[in-house]
Amino acid sequence: AELRRLVQDVARVGELARELQDSAANLISRTSNEEQALRQRAVGLDADLRRIQTSVNAAVRRGGTLDAKDADKLDEELCRARWLISDGDVGSLLPNKSHGRFLKMFLGPINVRAIRKDVRLKVKEEYNNYRDRTAFMFLLFPSMLLLLRAWVWDGCFPAWPVQLYQAWLLFLYTSLALRENILRANGSDIRPWWIYHHYCAMLMALVSLTWEIKGQPDCASKQKGVQLFLEWAVMQAFAMLLQNRYQRQRLYTRIALGKARRMDVVWGETAGVDGQLWLLCPILFILQGFEAYVGMKLLLIASEGLVPEWQVVVCGILLVLMAVGNFANTVQTLMVKSRF
Amino acid sequence: AELRRLVQDVARVGELARELQDSAANLISRTSNEEQALRQRAVGLDADLRRIQTSVNAAVRRGGTLDAKDADKLDEELCRARWLISDGDVGSLLPNKSHGRFLKMFLGPINVRAIRKDVRLKVKEEYNNYRDRTAFMFLLFPSMLLLLRAWVWDGCFPAWPVQLYQAWLLFLYTSLALRENILRANGSDIRPWWIYHHYCAMLMALVSLTWEIKGQPDCASKQKGVQLFLEWAVMQAFAMLLQNRYQRQRLYTRIALGKARRMDVVWGETAGVDGQLWLLCPILFILQGFEAYVGMKLLLIASEGLVPEWQVVVCGILLVLMAVGNFANTVQTLMVKSRF
Ligand SMILES: CC(C)(COP(=O)(O)OP(=O)(O)OC[C@H]1O[C@@H](n2cnc3c(N)ncnc32)[C@H](O)[C@@H]1OP(=O)(O)O)[C@@H](O)C(=O)NCCC(=O)NCCS
Ligand SMILES: CC(C)(COP(=O)(O)OP(=O)(O)OC[C@H]1O[C@@H](n2cnc3c(N)ncnc32)[C@H](O)[C@@H]1OP(=O)(O)O)[C@@H](O)C(=O)NCCC(=O)NCCS
Repeated sequence: AELRRLVQDVARVGELARELQDSAANLISRTSNEEQALRQRAVGLDADLRRIQTSVNAAVRRGGTLDAKDADKLDEELCRARWLISDGDVGSLLPNKSHGRFLKMFLGPINVRAIRKDVRLKVKEEYNNYRDRTAFMFLLFPSMLLLLRAWVWDGCFPAWPVQLYQAWLLFLYTSLALRENILRANGSDIRPWWIYHHYCAMLMALVSLTWEIKGQPDCASKQKGVQLFLEWAVMQAFAMLLQNRYQRQRLYTRIALGKARRMDVVWGETAGVDGQLWLLCPILFILQGFEAYVGMKLLLIASEGLVPEWQVVVCGILLVLMAVGNFANTVQTLMVKSRF
Repeated sequence: AELRRLVQDVARVGELARELQDSAANLISRTSNEEQALRQRAVGLDADLRRIQTSVNAAVRRGGTLDAKDADKLDEELCRARWLISDGDVGSLLPNKSHGRFLKMFLGPINVRAIRKDVRLKVKEEYNNYRDRTAFMFLLFPSMLLLLRAWVWDGCFPAWPVQLYQAWLLFLYTSLALRENILRANGSDIRPWWIYHHYCAMLMALVSLTWEIKGQPDCASKQKGVQLFLEWAVMQAFAMLLQNRYQRQRLYTRIALGKARRMDVVWGETAGVDGQLWLLCPILFILQGFEAYVGMKLLLIASEGLVPEWQVVVCGILLVLMAVGNFANTVQTLMVKSRF
């Protein structure tokens, strides 16, 4: 009797499993058919939009029939329609835009785009949390090295703690660059420069790893480059902490306003956080100035022949490049924002 | 008239875009509801399966009512049912298993699992192609360095080409480790060791980057470690080329047989490629022996004090570790396969 019951149970669950599998296969194929249909409608509509936009532009150029106010209204409506297709729920069904070479290089051609919007927001939030967690380490690690050097190590870095730090830095920047590329694939509006900035920082961490850390005698002058590098890192950590605070509040405000979408910004984001930006930016400018100063100083050291390694030159150039790029992009961000 | 037509066109496409957006939102929410329902059924069924498996096991232990053949049949049916849930189309709807710490560290908690099976197979194929493309570089790069050293550089490596190579190696292994973790999340059966092996190789590339490459005088003996490292790399490239050839054929055979699923292997994969394995493995064993030899040699060099850097010791230990692990896992793979 017990055996019969067991056999029946097993047959029953086997049957249930097959049914479930059929339902799942059915759901997947049905969904992918419907997605396909929507995708075709989207592609068709996109072509229509382009055509009409061209006509509107032509009409505006010709003048006469269309006055400026009408043209603006038409433009706005077209823009809104385009945004619905590219960024709304339709957008998540469209074939993936290429994720960019960086992601492809590391991950291959996988899909990192989340379909549901709440998941996309969670990715962003997790990114902010990650930055918070690391910013702390980011400040602590180089500060400790600099303090230990003064108090314990007699003015002389031993090689391995510094190299450990540099390896960690390389990992950190790689991870940030990957995550930001993923955010971008999920529709974030991040300026390309902030990602390039992390590529530069990755390169710098890599180069600094090959940088030989010379010991006694006279290490203070031989290690000048390393010291400057660490001072830059401490300062970078401050920038990151400030920026995190601002970005987190910004995201929360946007979620609270239900405006976690790209175009809403263009349509007038006047949330309270933008005031903070005017407070944050002067500090950022000072830090960027310091970044350029450290870069110049490294180049100076190299040109004086105190530390004749190519690594010093490369790091110096990268720092100056990053400072200029950061400055230019911060200014551009401010200009775009102040236009609304 | 033209103006009116334009306004009408714009209004029409605006309307179409809104409709499309509504359809898409509708599809997404409908799908996610249905998925939710299936998920709940799957979770319930999973609990049932576990319960019944326990009863079967208990009955087998008690003996008497259940003879060995019946028990085997029940076990197989349960196993099949479990597999349908975990690995079939249902599996792709289940909440993501955690992707492992490595992916999370680099990418954050994003979903890298493809829902459709054909996409999953494409990921695997792309991984194989990637390995092919890099295996070529992997062989060429260190061979060139060794040849240039003998022919052009007078027996002495300059630092930067070697460091460039090591940086590339670090990137390559990171990328392979990421891709393999993604494959695993997509249901590949890859043994964890092959991934750990890439973590070790990443660590080794990182350590070798901090490895100071000394120049004249007497560089030949000072650079002994670097030379061994490069020779290991050349040999590793051969292993990779052979393995690629085998894995690619294996994938094609499995796709051709429609057996691109995990359990099919357990249920008797006796495809032609398994013969190749007995040809490949002796070569792999030789290469693994050489890997251990290089590792021991590095340790010997370090103990003799010829190259007193800690990097040499760490690389030596890692190489021996990798050789032992590779050997053990290749043997285990062979044992598992020969059991069927
Ligand atoms: C200037 C700054 C505060 C502007 O931030 P912002 O108001 O969020 O800028 P935007 O409105 O253009 O942001 C658009 C998107 O890019 C993101 N973003 C902006 N700057 C970013 C940065 N540096 N890193 C990562 N993401 C950034 C935003 O989060 C936003 O994402 P979303 O579309 O997913 O919401 C910010 O870019 C910044 O802190 N830059 C300075 C960094 C710096 O110089 N550091 C080094 C100092 S030495
Ligand atoms: C021994 C070996 C040939 C067995 O390969 P196999 O027959 O594919 O082994 P399995 O059947 O256990 O493979 C299971 C899965 O792991 C994958 N896999 C096995 N070994 C792998 C490896 N070294 N790297 C990446 N993936 C591997 C297979 O592709 C398969 O994936 P799938 O489930 O998606 O189809 C292979 O593991 C190998 O080449 N190892 C030796 C590597 C080595 O020692 N290199 C260094 C030499 S110094």
